[in-house]
Amino acid sequence: MNIDQEALKLHKKLKGKIAIVPRIKIKNSHDLSLVYTPGVAAVSQYLSKNKAQLTDYTIKNNTVAVISDGSAVLGLGNIGPEGALPVMEGKCLLFKNFADIDAFPIVLSTQDPDEIIKTVVAIAPGFGGINLEDISAPKCFYIEEALKKQLDIPVIHDDQWGTATVTLAALINSLKVIGKKIDQVKIVILGVGAAGSAILKILDAFGAKNILLCDRQGIIYKGRKNNTPYKEKLASITNPTQEKGDLSLAMKNADVFIGVSGPCLVTGAMVSLMNKLAIVFALANPQPEIMPDEAKKAGAYISASGRSDFPNQVNNALVFPGVFRGALDNKIKEITLSMFIKAAQNLASLVKNPNPEKIIPSIFDKGVVSAVAKAVI
Amino acid sequence: MNIDQEALKLHKKLKGKIAIVPRIKIKNSHDLSLVYTPGVAAVSQYLSKNKAQLTDYTIKNNTVAVISDGSAVLGLGNIGPEGALPVMEGKCLLFKNFADIDAFPIVLSTQDPDEIIKTVVAIAPGFGGINLEDISAPKCFYIEEALKKQLDIPVIHDDQWGTATVTLAALINSLKVIGKKIDQVKIVILGVGAAGSAILKILDAFGAKNILLCDRQGIIYKGRKNNTPYKEKLASITNPTQEKGDLSLAMKNADVFIGVSGPCLVTGAMVSLMNKLAIVFALANPQPEIMPDEAKKAGAYISASGRSDFPNQVNNALVFPGVFRGALDNKIKEITLSMFIKAAQNLASLVKNPNPEKIIPSIFDKGVVSAVAKAVI
Repeated sequence: MNIDQEALKLHKKLKGKIAIVPRIKIKNSHDLSLVYTPGVAAVSQYLSKNKAQLTDYTIKNNTVAVISDGSAVLGLGNIGPEGALPVMEGKCLLFKNFADIDAFPIVLSTQDPDEIIKTVVAIAPGFGGINLEDISAPKCFYIEEALKKQLDIPVIHDDQWGTATVTLAALINSLKVIGKKIDQVKIVILGVGAAGSAILKILDAFGAKNILLCDRQGIIYKGRKNNTPYKEKLASITNPTQEKGDLSLAMKNADVFIGVSGPCLVTGAMVSLMNKLAIVFALANPQPEIMPDEAKKAGAYISASGRSDFPNQVNNALVFPGVFRGALDNKIKEITLSMFIKAAQNLASLVKNPNPEKIIPSIFDKGVVSAVAKAVI
Repeated sequence: MNIDQEALKLHKKLKGKIAIVPRIKIKNSHDLSLVYTPGVAAVSQYLSKNKAQLTDYTIKNNTVAVISDGSAVLGLGNIGPEGALPVMEGKCLLFKNFADIDAFPIVLSTQDPDEIIKTVVAIAPGFGGINLEDISAPKCFYIEEALKKQLDIPVIHDDQWGTATVTLAALINSLKVIGKKIDQVKIVILGVGAAGSAILKILDAFGAKNILLCDRQGIIYKGRKNNTPYKEKLASITNPTQEKGDLSLAMKNADVFIGVSGPCLVTGAMVSLMNKLAIVFALANPQPEIMPDEAKKAGAYISASGRSDFPNQVNNALVFPGVFRGALDNKIKEITLSMFIKAAQNLASLVKNPNPEKIIPSIFDKGVVSAVAKAVI
């Protein structure tokens, strides 16, 4: 039985990967009168007048909504809310398993950005944080921006910031291994969706000077035919010498390749064009741009993917549990770029002796969640 | 310490009455690859093409959203989403405790009916049912109606149908005790909100012929000054002889009083105007229209309230867990009036020897949930 069949069988058996449990047993009518009417009325009246204390008396203290419209699920594209639900459930399972956070999946029947914003604002009062997930670019930027402005709880689009943070952590250790500095290396990012854009922002803020951004048409440069306004803007902050050409040209003499695009878009031949000690992060999920072993065979010195069946799993599951743990514990209202950078540094420093087979902690390593949480303060 | 203080203390200690738990432990990367990426992708792809099977593979199988805008919380009025949250949490706790249903509270930052409808439709795909709660009348009717049309999962405004069903159950047994038939008795309903309206509908469908509906201005009759269109409509289907007057006049020679209004609106003097073997249900929560012992002293033969500290607790907690259990188990898309009537009959029949001190089962009696669930088929 392959992993797909095994996953289908497990999900059919479970019929739901998470459940609700009472935090107090109702054994008699006195218990009932405390948790429900009439006793609960005193709590309701108190909180209606002391709204800031919601986190001291209710689930808002420890809950995160994991919200998706299903428009960009894993590497599968727009498969709708039904396709998104098992992923969001899985995410909630990870939240609980790794950070003891009570996360609940909400999948949406709308894919309209303004309706998504209105919906999230409408359901927000009972949540301590909002994790946006698998929402397609570029609307995800607009949605995240609007929600951050309108809500006083942390809002994170994890495909952007979780991925960017864990990628930076892996890159910090990879550069340490090959003995190069961030401002010296040529970096190619393939994919300008949610993840690619945030990786660009975090690497830029961390000091990268030479980034080429590619989409399926090749290198993005100013004035390229059919550039959207968004890509035109990206062109102006990347590609310092305004190179033009396809992905192969971009890869030539690159030190770092970061793929957040789709399956099998990179060949061994392309990897062999890179500089010595090449770093290849092929992060598309579930099928990477190039399989890690193939990248190695083609000359990559360090190879990473999003997969759990190869070394160096660059997975945002290393980030989101800790970030929200820190935010909830410290009642942080907004997670800033510098907090994500600090989280990446903390995450990287957990690997005592980085080497090509170990540039990033495993999600099962102790201290991951608390190291990340410490950055959110 | 009184019950209010005790409830506040308990809520502060718990910081949330429910929690999320994993239904499967993630012990290693193989587990992770099944519940999350890459394995979950197979489930996502499958469900995006087989949407009807969501209940076979996800939490939709057993989840109910408990949704309130906080516009009519218990008897406390419009205290907003913050005031509503502890009640909705309590409700979710009861769902789990009594019917093993995974219910999650959603409190809304909007009180606009159309925005509420849009929000609920937007978040519905992952839920197996929608329990609307503590939404003020008359907008609650419009909201429930619209959602029933737009969604293919059961939508119940519990303040209407939970209350109506348990009230009918209590009345069936009370009439048995006093030896009168539903079509012979004069019934006074005080309160034309969500509960009052639904009680009127269920009693009408069950065969009641002589119902007087009262609000704070007294008996509702056709052409009464300041009648809303809604009250004008109610006037035409109640009050067969079009009586005019205050609550005292309505109570004169009544056999049954049902209060779903507010605290302390009924005096002992009013109860003493009722017929012999008077039935008094004073259901306002947390403070009834008249305390059960006071009603008895004034001549009530059977007295009931929503409170757990007196006999005959007429509480919709006897209904909603079983109704949704039945709906989820049988994949019922809409709960009909006749199902609610059947649920009331099943509930009533659980009391083997009804008497003035026991006209309704206790929520702690065995068989309550399954008796109600059997009506939803």
